[in-house]
Amino acid sequence: MWNKLATNRASRLERASPLADGKVVKADAITALLEAVIEPGDRLCIEGNNQKQADFLAKALANVNPQVVHDLHIVQSVLALPQHLDVFEKGIASKLDFSFSGPQAARLARMLSAGQLKIGAIHTYLELFGRYFTDLTPRISLVCAQAADRAGNLYTGGNTEDTPVIVESTAFRQGIVIAQVNEIVDVLPRVDIPTDWVDFVVQSPKPHYIEPLFTRDPAQISEIQVLMAMMAIKGIYAEYGVKRLNHGIGFDTAAIELILPTYAESLGLKGKIATHWALNPHPALIPAIEAGFVESVHSFGSELGMEDYIRARSDVFFTGRDGSMRSNRALSQTAGLYACDMFIGSTLQIDLDGNSSTATLGRIAGFGGAPNMGSDARGRRHGSDAWLKAGQEASTGSMPRGRKLVVQMVETFREHMAPAFVEKLDAWQLAESAGLDLPPVMIYGDDVTHVLTEEGIANLLLCRTPEEREQAIRGVAGYTAVGLGRDKRMVENLRDRGIIKRPADLGVDVSLATRDLLAAKSMKDLVRTSGGLYRPPARFRNW
Amino acid sequence: MWNKLATNRASRLERASPLADGKVVKADAITALLEAVIEPGDRLCIEGNNQKQADFLAKALANVNPQVVHDLHIVQSVLALPQHLDVFEKGIASKLDFSFSGPQAARLARMLSAGQLKIGAIHTYLELFGRYFTDLTPRISLVCAQAADRAGNLYTGGNTEDTPVIVESTAFRQGIVIAQVNEIVDVLPRVDIPTDWVDFVVQSPKPHYIEPLFTRDPAQISEIQVLMAMMAIKGIYAEYGVKRLNHGIGFDTAAIELILPTYAESLGLKGKIATHWALNPHPALIPAIEAGFVESVHSFGSELGMEDYIRARSDVFFTGRDGSMRSNRALSQTAGLYACDMFIGSTLQIDLDGNSSTATLGRIAGFGGAPNMGSDARGRRHGSDAWLKAGQEASTGSMPRGRKLVVQMVETFREHMAPAFVEKLDAWQLAESAGLDLPPVMIYGDDVTHVLTEEGIANLLLCRTPEEREQAIRGVAGYTAVGLGRDKRMVENLRDRGIIKRPADLGVDVSLATRDLLAAKSMKDLVRTSGGLYRPPARFRNW
Repeated sequence: MWNKLATNRASRLERASPLADGKVVKADAITALLEAVIEPGDRLCIEGNNQKQADFLAKALANVNPQVVHDLHIVQSVLALPQHLDVFEKGIASKLDFSFSGPQAARLARMLSAGQLKIGAIHTYLELFGRYFTDLTPRISLVCAQAADRAGNLYTGGNTEDTPVIVESTAFRQGIVIAQVNEIVDVLPRVDIPTDWVDFVVQSPKPHYIEPLFTRDPAQISEIQVLMAMMAIKGIYAEYGVKRLNHGIGFDTAAIELILPTYAESLGLKGKIATHWALNPHPALIPAIEAGFVESVHSFGSELGMEDYIRARSDVFFTGRDGSMRSNRALSQTAGLYACDMFIGSTLQIDLDGNSSTATLGRIAGFGGAPNMGSDARGRRHGSDAWLKAGQEASTGSMPRGRKLVVQMVETFREHMAPAFVEKLDAWQLAESAGLDLPPVMIYGDDVTHVLTEEGIANLLLCRTPEEREQAIRGVAGYTAVGLGRDKRMVENLRDRGIIKRPADLGVDVSLATRDLLAAKSMKDLVRTSGGLYRPPARFRNW
Repeated sequence: MWNKLATNRASRLERASPLADGKVVKADAITALLEAVIEPGDRLCIEGNNQKQADFLAKALANVNPQVVHDLHIVQSVLALPQHLDVFEKGIASKLDFSFSGPQAARLARMLSAGQLKIGAIHTYLELFGRYFTDLTPRISLVCAQAADRAGNLYTGGNTEDTPVIVESTAFRQGIVIAQVNEIVDVLPRVDIPTDWVDFVVQSPKPHYIEPLFTRDPAQISEIQVLMAMMAIKGIYAEYGVKRLNHGIGFDTAAIELILPTYAESLGLKGKIATHWALNPHPALIPAIEAGFVESVHSFGSELGMEDYIRARSDVFFTGRDGSMRSNRALSQTAGLYACDMFIGSTLQIDLDGNSSTATLGRIAGFGGAPNMGSDARGRRHGSDAWLKAGQEASTGSMPRGRKLVVQMVETFREHMAPAFVEKLDAWQLAESAGLDLPPVMIYGDDVTHVLTEEGIANLLLCRTPEEREQAIRGVAGYTAVGLGRDKRMVENLRDRGIIKRPADLGVDVSLATRDLLAAKSMKDLVRTSGGLYRPPARFRNW
């Protein structure tokens, strides 16, 4: 028997056929359909993305009878909704492999302690996708699209995100693909997933949930963040000529985006830095786009409110022939890994080796895309000025090679005066309490090239011994215990050698570091700069 | 003006419309169509894959009038056909970014010396794909599919290879996609690429060229290769419990595949090693599949003659609902990078640091997928026994992490007595003569974990100093000058510490290393083992 999967698939479809009209399932039949097609022990992928959620299907899954459906192995990018964990409490599922669980991180940790589920592993997105084609191929996938036609073709629209890889891995290993859609129409704006790859579509009673995850209100950016952004531009972007990049999420990098058309422009950097991006359509990038800084942006997903702006800026964004965006997390992560010269992002904790983590006690959050984009792509072979220069600085061996710039940008103290620099990451304790193989490090110290704080930039590429590296980190760690523990003489020596650079060393005029430098100071400014094309979600419309 | 690309696209389509009937173009109109839609200076992607070639479109492009179409920037995975270089000789194209040029490597080097083209860079496949979404997005793509329907939907069939990424990058940045197909039909077996992503289809006068690149005749496997395969299985596969892996191309790894059902079976390793693969459907894997060794294979492309076997073994291969294979180079390379615990492959030269290269003087060949799969994925976060054990062996720092196994497998002398071990790679001279940024290294020494020759296995993970590493390499380099230059006392010390292992140290009985151990000794054996389902191309049918 060499076609067991196909035979099994056929019997599942047979059980389901009375519940569907062709491929179309009525909303009130969905739980029955899931009970008909799912078998105990199945590996099931539920589309939980960074933004888009197959929420109707998640709820339906949480409502199946655990006598019928149990011991599922859930594989899922992002656990965002309560139902994503309810299935474990109810005995429907027992094992989980995932990437990110931000909003559910605390509950996940509690449930793990209570023995309510078993975690396979925490992944970076692209890694999890790779396993979908190897040892974690889903037997059933519950995905999410904007619309379907009656034949079952899908239109994912702007927020394509993970849908293509989930569907491809499942459909081509004799699995079953069920899609919730906001509407069923006669003619789709465009086909994103052919019906041959889809088994069932169901119109959800209300549109799928979507989170405006990448929107940052410029009003909340501090002057410290403006100062750090100025240092980033002068000390790293300009220094290395960084053209192709990814920005992490948060206010630190939003500040950089917002001073491109002011500060970077004043340094004559237009066209010389930050031209090509692997990035969600950050509203904070609007002023830089309007100023002509940006040549192209390829995105993991879209961003609520940016639809019309994207459509009107098709020279910059990847859009379909219907005018709406095409995003694709797998391909944008690939671009981030292999075609970007720099990743810059924030973190919660950095240790003396430069290892960073957002894992804190009592929360199992995962890291999303940061481990992938914040790692040196050792398979990369094409040169660029930024990559070659970083490689030269790092060079110790006899064989020259390039190096990705990986910048960790933090204020020395987070909110509630928690120090960003620590002797030992919380990740160690978390690994022990959660029984993980290794401490959950977001970016390993040997991949980090620069640490940037309000005190300055430490260039770890130029450090030649572990001691120098430790002192370089202490030397920008401010008044944290780690910073106070510095060897002052050695830190001054590192500064003399240009390994540590203070604002003055960079020629950054601290008096300019005010909010006046932000090309947009509020959400309203962003809307105005977009010519009214950007339409922020209600919660951000504070004027 | 923010929609220049879309406007320009519209005017190209308008120029082309008299030459097409909807999306369908007649074969004899193709050169005129290309002259109508291509503009001087365009970045153009021609689908040259490892196996499948858009050969009709490549010829048509070589026939355009250089007065009309010139200075193209060609982006292309594999340069395989003479026409791929003719366009540079004729002045149609001037710049090239690529991954592999095996069959055209010598001519490419000559043309580069003669100043007939400029090379942007040499990439690994996934890296080039990443750039398609960043700074090397094609304006025009000439791709290849098995069939189209009259609406322009494409069926790529088993050899999907690079088509999805090429089309996605081009179609969603307002580019133009032209597909050659073997036939235009009323109803496709399945839709792989929706017509919304395609502009023109043309039926080529004969089916596209396809190369059976991964077929190795077992009759050509030597007893030395059997011995090395035994060492690989006992000393690496069993030692680390390697379940998820990729094999490079060649007879060395074909020998491993062919002794899985004999030698590995006798060691009780079935189900414990080599269960999940990122691999083209190698005919040499048939005996292991039939013996129940293999749980799943996801492929970059397909292999000529394997169609019916794949269809009949859908539990193992990824196949569509029409029964034919679905391959996808980008996703299989992602699996190879992030979900495989080991890459094992051959090379032409290894230096004293373990850097390896297949670049030799007068040939600019590139490396295909090896740099990606043969690199430690530093973004990987999930554990496996093999990865954790390798990481423990390598551990020197305070933060534990895992490590991919990267094995270079070579006989100490290649054909014509050329030594595989050298003091300095030819890549250095090639970099100088071709003006490359860096020497073209296939796999960097610090990513290589094991070097395997007929003399034994050197475990570089356990070496603690550069000197130990050099002597470990010399210690398996046999009678090459590098091998003869070993420090005998130090090599014996490394052997005592288990860093170098000879066959006897591994418990490998050299007297068993005969061709009798091969589960198939000829092409005919492979066919027989497949139950007649495997149908080798004529050139391999030597009985």
